[in-house]
Amino acid sequence: MKPDFDPTLYLVTDRGCLAGRDLLDVVGRAVAGGAKLVQLREKNACTREFVELARALVGLVRPLGARLVINDRVDVALACDADGVHVGQDDMRPADVRALIGSQRILGLSVTGEDETLAARGEPVDYLGAGPVFATATKKDAGAPQGLDGLARMIALAEVPVVAIGAVTAANAAAVMAAGAAGLAVVSAICAAPDPEAAARELRAIAEGR
Amino acid sequence: MKPDFDPTLYLVTDRGCLAGRDLLDVVGRAVAGGAKLVQLREKNACTREFVELARALVGLVRPLGARLVINDRVDVALACDADGVHVGQDDMRPADVRALIGSQRILGLSVTGEDETLAARGEPVDYLGAGPVFATATKKDAGAPQGLDGLARMIALAEVPVVAIGAVTAANAAAVMAAGAAGLAVVSAICAAPDPEAAARELRAIAEGR
Repeated sequence: MKPDFDPTLYLVTDRGCLAGRDLLDVVGRAVAGGAKLVQLREKNACTREFVELARALVGLVRPLGARLVINDRVDVALACDADGVHVGQDDMRPADVRALIGSQRILGLSVTGEDETLAARGEPVDYLGAGPVFATATKKDAGAPQGLDGLARMIALAEVPVVAIGAVTAANAAAVMAAGAAGLAVVSAICAAPDPEAAARELRAIAEGR
Repeated sequence: MKPDFDPTLYLVTDRGCLAGRDLLDVVGRAVAGGAKLVQLREKNACTREFVELARALVGLVRPLGARLVINDRVDVALACDADGVHVGQDDMRPADVRALIGSQRILGLSVTGEDETLAARGEPVDYLGAGPVFATATKKDAGAPQGLDGLARMIALAEVPVVAIGAVTAANAAAVMAAGAAGLAVVSAICAAPDPEAAARELRAIAEGR
């Protein structure tokens, strides 16, 4: 059976945001603060390093009750026995990914705008990452900001839960959830926070309407 | 059963060497000229493009009696049902690759020098790519040239067939084979040749001692 996953607070890693801190330490703190889904995103690591990091993260987050998905690299996900894969529009097609990972792993897909959200209908994905909601500096190839209205339109078209990404912070998290998001996907709001655990805790409380 | 493969003339692709020509056209000519093993090496393509290119090449070379292996990306190899994978020292470890591709596909490993060749003993690989024999411009992270003597020492230490790579040309191919290589692995000697089929035919004839 596919593992349950909790998308309420979804940490996407970026080693460029850590200001010299250790990725495992920051992820561990974020999970302790309530990020129960973690995506390892590595755009520059060689495959050997990527696999080693992924294995270390699986070993870290799984005992804490969180899930790890791997950005883009199905081979890395399989090698480290991750909980799933997240792909973008330039990555492997969802049907191809599903054929490789089977039905037992989570598959997420990034979408920007209504056309990509419509195209995702019927794809074998478990959630969508919709964005960028706001203008973001952490993903250079992100598309045009969709705004809260655009997010709401994407959510209305989606057949699966939608997490919102793109400059999501504690200041706008309540509005993002009010637009219908199933969760908040964040990079720098946790990775770059002075206290990643406190940042995660605050975001999670907002996402849960507490 | 693992597919037979003929490493006598091994084409490693480099789209940077094609001078605007179509990769499939050049590969098709090279195979017609006698390159019966082809490695698709793509260091800049996004995953979606890589998979599409790999599928097109499988469809091209297999009916011609050649084998296609994929550089680095096990996921791409699995998605396109390639004949195998070739990894370097920074890529996934051979044992991890073998666990993902099973016993039915070819696995090759790049080695530079005697230490890496020794370390490869006992690894689940089907051949080694040893080099660079001579100084090469097509692989920026290649190590120090090993020369013909260094190649012969690596071959003496290897447990599996060794193909030689690194500025191998028609001018030095006979000497490379005389050092004990099972085959010639070439990039620019075919990819950049005005007539890739004729270049492959000449290299194959030399490799076979004709």
